[in-house]
Amino acid sequence: MSAEKGFVLSDYLAARKEMIDQALDHYLPQADNYPPLIFQAVRYSLFAGGKRLRPILCLAAAEAVGGEIQPLLPVACALEMIHTYSLIHDDLPAMDNDDLRRGRPTSHKVFGEAAAILAGDALLTEAFHLMSSRDRLGQTPAEKLLQVIHNIAEAAGFWGMVGGQVVDIQSEEKKANQETLDYIHTHKTGAMILASVRAGAVLSGARVKDIQALSDYGRHIGLAFQIADDILNVEGNRSILGKDTGSDAERGKMTFPGLWGLESSREKTVELVGLALSAIQGFDDRADALRAIARYIVERKS
Amino acid sequence: MSAEKGFVLSDYLAARKEMIDQALDHYLPQADNYPPLIFQAVRYSLFAGGKRLRPILCLAAAEAVGGEIQPLLPVACALEMIHTYSLIHDDLPAMDNDDLRRGRPTSHKVFGEAAAILAGDALLTEAFHLMSSRDRLGQTPAEKLLQVIHNIAEAAGFWGMVGGQVVDIQSEEKKANQETLDYIHTHKTGAMILASVRAGAVLSGARVKDIQALSDYGRHIGLAFQIADDILNVEGNRSILGKDTGSDAERGKMTFPGLWGLESSREKTVELVGLALSAIQGFDDRADALRAIARYIVERKS
Repeated sequence: MSAEKGFVLSDYLAARKEMIDQALDHYLPQADNYPPLIFQAVRYSLFAGGKRLRPILCLAAAEAVGGEIQPLLPVACALEMIHTYSLIHDDLPAMDNDDLRRGRPTSHKVFGEAAAILAGDALLTEAFHLMSSRDRLGQTPAEKLLQVIHNIAEAAGFWGMVGGQVVDIQSEEKKANQETLDYIHTHKTGAMILASVRAGAVLSGARVKDIQALSDYGRHIGLAFQIADDILNVEGNRSILGKDTGSDAERGKMTFPGLWGLESSREKTVELVGLALSAIQGFDDRADALRAIARYIVERKS
Repeated sequence: MSAEKGFVLSDYLAARKEMIDQALDHYLPQADNYPPLIFQAVRYSLFAGGKRLRPILCLAAAEAVGGEIQPLLPVACALEMIHTYSLIHDDLPAMDNDDLRRGRPTSHKVFGEAAAILAGDALLTEAFHLMSSRDRLGQTPAEKLLQVIHNIAEAAGFWGMVGGQVVDIQSEEKKANQETLDYIHTHKTGAMILASVRAGAVLSGARVKDIQALSDYGRHIGLAFQIADDILNVEGNRSILGKDTGSDAERGKMTFPGLWGLESSREKTVELVGLALSAIQGFDDRADALRAIARYIVERKS
């Protein structure tokens, strides 16, 4: 609800992050529930300083079509739970074997491998538990809620994030090619970012035409985000990033900078942000947050 | 729809298993989809000769209240997907480290640990994808579907199966006590069995009173099933069971026979089956399948 000129993204992001953190804390059982191990492990990873990009995009998309954001918080938080589960499982020894995440030891380093697997499983399950809660989402039309649950499950499962992660792992040490790389990027990260934006639009009762425009926006920034992530992995500052840089190259991961070089990768992200902004050019200043987030995605340092 | 006298459980179970296997095959993408590894891994575990107890219970509960079973198949299959995901993750080296399941090498033995973790993740996600599909479940009232999704997610997550598995793992090599054992049994296995029965009743539009009676039935057979499973682990025939016997004792798992001995454990299962039958004594012969399944649960050899 900000005029383009007065809009300060850092304030906006901080306020939204605060709102989402509070909601997550409210929805998630406290760590003294039984068995404490699982609630401690889940909370450890969920409150590890994430940017809350997916929930923020979901709420910003709602705002862009004039929707209220408060009723969407359960779905926004579920998106973050699914994202966090994927990080916990990706970090496991059998997967990327990462010791650090956001500057802290990864879940399996702190709680052991079994608890980390189960914490991921619990978060994924809880996301669907929360999204199907009529106590939390009683005012949302049931049909719309089912549609959003379906979209998000599709984006998280083998047609989305899991499929992308499988190809990512299989591509290690293999010769990079554009087709495989596109598959990894659009599925591993892109699908859930797109689903986040769509969820906000659908739940706000947006018109089909607007949902389509916002989906295009989501698709472009999703890809831009992943390429920017790959660039940060090459040249990012370890202390800002909170994890090791250069790890992709070490593992022989297929990345955009690896295939096209840093310069072309940067150009590509700028191009994608341009496409994202074009997709929503018909929206009024209520879409300013989405515009600012698109630019931020390629300019961020962590 | 069978008269009590003419009812042959083995025929009934075989026909239901066939129906569910066909539906699962129909709902699940073929193994030649991209990336093949994930679809191969998912199908390997899902078509490994499972008894389909949870889906069969879901359909039998629907039958008991006069509901149609065909429209419930997607939810029934989703229950089996969640069950299969839990087996794949339970077998992982960091968890129970099992090499055999239903007489075949476990998922991580065949496809590697990363693929096994992701196959479990994909199955869990696909269960919610399938249950929220209006293409598959268009005739089911959206509110009822949300309620069932919510119940199933609760039974699968930290208030159910995951919680039970955490306590199970933590209880290894610890002194057995009734309270912990009850928690493990009711959560690890019982919750999903209860949810399966409830789902069939709720989706069939059963009266609150009948849903309550069927829930009681589900609660009792869920516990009976787990105790019977523990007994089989002690004295079962490896070739019939398809997995190693005595593995619980070797791992120092907390089990009912471990705490109370085989004789008392057997008595307990008989008592529980009696309670389950009492709970549904007001139902007509359309509940005969549920009655026969309750008896079968404690008499089975695998």
